[in-house]
Amino acid sequence: MRAHNLALVLQTVANSPDRPSRAATSTATGLTRATVSALVDDLIAGGLLTEHEPAPRVGAGRPAAGLALAPDGAAGLGLEINVDYLSACVVDLTGAVRHRFVAHADQRPLAPAAALTELGRVAGQARQAAAANGLPLAGAALAVPGLVTADGTVRVAPNLGWQDVDAPALLRAIPALADLPLSVDNEANLAALGELRADHGGEQTFLYVSGEIGIGAGIVLDGELYRGGRGWSGEIGHVTVYPDGRPCRCGANGCLEQYAGQEAVAADAGLAAAALGIALAAVVNLLDIGVIVLGGAYAPELQRLRPGIEAEVHRRVLTADLAPVTLRAATLGTDAAMRGAADTVLRAVLDDPASYLNLRRAG
Amino acid sequence: MRAHNLALVLQTVANSPDRPSRAATSTATGLTRATVSALVDDLIAGGLLTEHEPAPRVGAGRPAAGLALAPDGAAGLGLEINVDYLSACVVDLTGAVRHRFVAHADQRPLAPAAALTELGRVAGQARQAAAANGLPLAGAALAVPGLVTADGTVRVAPNLGWQDVDAPALLRAIPALADLPLSVDNEANLAALGELRADHGGEQTFLYVSGEIGIGAGIVLDGELYRGGRGWSGEIGHVTVYPDGRPCRCGANGCLEQYAGQEAVAADAGLAAAALGIALAAVVNLLDIGVIVLGGAYAPELQRLRPGIEAEVHRRVLTADLAPVTLRAATLGTDAAMRGAADTVLRAVLDDPASYLNLRRAG
Repeated sequence: MRAHNLALVLQTVANSPDRPSRAATSTATGLTRATVSALVDDLIAGGLLTEHEPAPRVGAGRPAAGLALAPDGAAGLGLEINVDYLSACVVDLTGAVRHRFVAHADQRPLAPAAALTELGRVAGQARQAAAANGLPLAGAALAVPGLVTADGTVRVAPNLGWQDVDAPALLRAIPALADLPLSVDNEANLAALGELRADHGGEQTFLYVSGEIGIGAGIVLDGELYRGGRGWSGEIGHVTVYPDGRPCRCGANGCLEQYAGQEAVAADAGLAAAALGIALAAVVNLLDIGVIVLGGAYAPELQRLRPGIEAEVHRRVLTADLAPVTLRAATLGTDAAMRGAADTVLRAVLDDPASYLNLRRAG
Repeated sequence: MRAHNLALVLQTVANSPDRPSRAATSTATGLTRATVSALVDDLIAGGLLTEHEPAPRVGAGRPAAGLALAPDGAAGLGLEINVDYLSACVVDLTGAVRHRFVAHADQRPLAPAAALTELGRVAGQARQAAAANGLPLAGAALAVPGLVTADGTVRVAPNLGWQDVDAPALLRAIPALADLPLSVDNEANLAALGELRADHGGEQTFLYVSGEIGIGAGIVLDGELYRGGRGWSGEIGHVTVYPDGRPCRCGANGCLEQYAGQEAVAADAGLAAAALGIALAAVVNLLDIGVIVLGGAYAPELQRLRPGIEAEVHRRVLTADLAPVTLRAATLGTDAAMRGAADTVLRAVLDDPASYLNLRRAG
């Protein structure tokens, strides 16, 4: 009951457009003022809430008084491993990115343990920076360009050359991460969640496409990530665009990835945009989704890619004349996946602050 | 309140594996025995329920006594217009098909009003047969191979050559249908719903593919039809399989329909199966759906199509080695769409028996 009410109070403050008072929080939650005050005191002591005192009236305005999420409370460590970079960010409870580290290097020659050890170095930098700022980390989440099971095992990451990698075990072996709650998920799924949350009150149904060396997608329907039967939805990079076309690392021919991956875009943006348009038209024909968000390396290239994509979508989508398809760049640019990863850590705190406070007390 | 309780009692009987007594229905619903008895009497008087008396014990067995849906109560009139046939069926509350009429004729030369007048003749036959058997019709639903809006307007049916057809108005002008509640929906969506309900307790997530002259799909996720933003999902017939391939009636090139429509299957089943496999692989890569149900004209052809489809799916689905994809023929064969249409009428009665009983009393 206390755990439920702690979450209720914390979420009421988090979702409030202004800083609610203790009294307003009592009204919004239906809890008594005494109960709310005790819970608020616990959340302030645990570093999750902060209380702004009313300022003396000076001049025309007056800063808002009341409760707010604490910017120096729990923070999330977002990590990403991709084919040609490693990255880490620290995001605080208010959603602000406090630290950000990126190391560019080709990961393909490295075995999984070696690549994750390198990632551990970047994560360690982020962790040191957070500690220097007094930001306690509530956990870490890793974005991987591959098929991830619910327990965090990477079944296949074709562009990294990984197969059946127990990523959580390898991460726990890294000193900088050993003591943190850890999770692992597909990078396009995490990026789609990052976009969904960055665009508060915005589009609730969209396709997020992440263009790196490989290409993945996250499908958001009515504000929820659609994961599919086994959590392996969104493999748009392996949708066939030219059935007898270029061979792909996955064993098939003519996969989108071979025409519109980052290297292919650099070589021939026109061909890449046409291939993307063909695959995106298939998605719109199948799912009747009206908004497509291009992220990763596509975000800065959108202007160059747009005409080719739009021409194919217009030509190949049966409903193109009846319902427009909107194409836009990801709000979070190339950081969407690691931001989404950090966000899953923070969501877990907002959903269950009691567990976080207990861990913090024990730690 | 009475309307809600009528629905509760009717659905409790409908979902019960055996024939529940009034007492058992009272326990299951939480309503008093007196309330249940009054509601049951109303449902019996309205023709929706029937009560079986216990039979005298003779020999080893004894027929079950208790409440059941009435086989001669409300029935649904399911209608379908497709490119080369018109059909109608009468389905009773127990799900049994009581009458079925099919007229084979090419509808493409006819204007919409003329085609629907022809459909009215088939519907009239079904209606007469139902009346001769004392089956009261609760309504009619029409399956159309095209894009249908929520109000029943057919925006486009490419293979019929229809555009912006006010189907409900044309249907209401037909004497055999004028006095019935009417609805119109996409044929693949209705067929997918028909399959979902025919396979009680079976697969809750699957792709239903309807192969006629055109090709449509219904996407069922966790027991719900996924309709998309505007209700126009499932246009798999216009997914591109060969970007520079055969021209399609929709204006694009290389649409699946041009390689795997009914006429193309007859001409070259190998080519059709490969094209189907390419498009289905795209669906599995995008949605991580493990079950594909082939209906319409595909159902009787499955044995011939299976090897080609499975070869392409195995080659082109990234997770093919990790998670099998099951391919099966539709349980309802070519009748799935009109059966699904009739079923929507019966669902409406089960969801709101009070409205049906009021209409019946007024009529």
